[in-house]
Amino acid sequence: MNNTIFFVSGNKNKFNEILPVMLKNNIQIQYFKQDLIEIQSKRIEEIAKQKAKDAYNFIQKPVLVEDDGLFIEELKGFPGQYSSFIYETIGNDGILKLLKNIRDRKAVFKAVIAYFDNNIEKYFTGEINGKIVEKKLGFGWGYDPIFVPEGFTVSFGQLHENGKKYQISHRFIATKKFCNWFNKYRDEKRN
Amino acid sequence: MNNTIFFVSGNKNKFNEILPVMLKNNIQIQYFKQDLIEIQSKRIEEIAKQKAKDAYNFIQKPVLVEDDGLFIEELKGFPGQYSSFIYETIGNDGILKLLKNIRDRKAVFKAVIAYFDNNIEKYFTGEINGKIVEKKLGFGWGYDPIFVPEGFTVSFGQLHENGKKYQISHRFIATKKFCNWFNKYRDEKRN
Repeated sequence: MNNTIFFVSGNKNKFNEILPVMLKNNIQIQYFKQDLIEIQSKRIEEIAKQKAKDAYNFIQKPVLVEDDGLFIEELKGFPGQYSSFIYETIGNDGILKLLKNIRDRKAVFKAVIAYFDNNIEKYFTGEINGKIVEKKLGFGWGYDPIFVPEGFTVSFGQLHENGKKYQISHRFIATKKFCNWFNKYRDEKRN
Repeated sequence: MNNTIFFVSGNKNKFNEILPVMLKNNIQIQYFKQDLIEIQSKRIEEIAKQKAKDAYNFIQKPVLVEDDGLFIEELKGFPGQYSSFIYETIGNDGILKLLKNIRDRKAVFKAVIAYFDNNIEKYFTGEINGKIVEKKLGFGWGYDPIFVPEGFTVSFGQLHENGKKYQISHRFIATKKFCNWFNKYRDEKRN
């Protein structure tokens, strides 16, 4: 029985972050580069579930997809579910301009990991609270340089650089939940 | 033969702008309030076509839907296809912050009107060039107060107030194209 799961995404950075978590949990996963059609929805859970079905229809193997977003409280949840588009257009500099002279910089990063194998559909969420910094710290990718998670003094960008981001991020939390469930599911199928 | 077309949208402002154009062209149209699921796509044509099919599936009558967006050149097309979400979160004040001290303020408003009656699928586009002002002028709705169309010194907001916006806008251009086509189509069906 081949248990490989295909992680379908147009963004390999996401795969790089979930791979070590999967390996640690003895789950075989393979990257499959494919941009998926996303619905416009207020809920990233809905987006991820739809993407998982599309991905399955496309490759006909067990698939895992991810959707995530950065939700800034003062900006009513912007960039939220459209984080990718907004990153590609106005980027981190745009976010910092929008928050210039604004005190309340609370934000939350949310991730949803959705699994589908034509038999079962499951999704798992992860959230991490934090704040948006005044100027970029470190590199990483996406909004990493402008987000400092609660309890830290360094940004996701800096945590990415020292190899720690993937062990604490919203994506990690969702991925870990998935691993716990999947290992039970796999054992049940075996018995 | 009942020729009423249903204009399906969650935003009645759009209906208010197309109604006089339809009346002038002897086309019967009725507003049907319904938010439609939108796909995330770079092309508003694709979004509108998909929405027309969804609307038809929902009400099983000839439908018209509209999708539009404001594309700001210096912001790489932002807010573009996500204009509604971005309006609801950062709004016009956010756009003005992003363009603060930026000289190049060129923008284009694009609209797509899509028709579907289970027999035929058609779409029509309208565009209007202009620029983003330094501060809001007039009211109207959406991005109207911050957009001045080429050849004018007043904003869409001010043109809305004096009843002229609907006669010159991107939405008008697309609607007019639709009317020209639809009247021929209707005549052919009658003969």
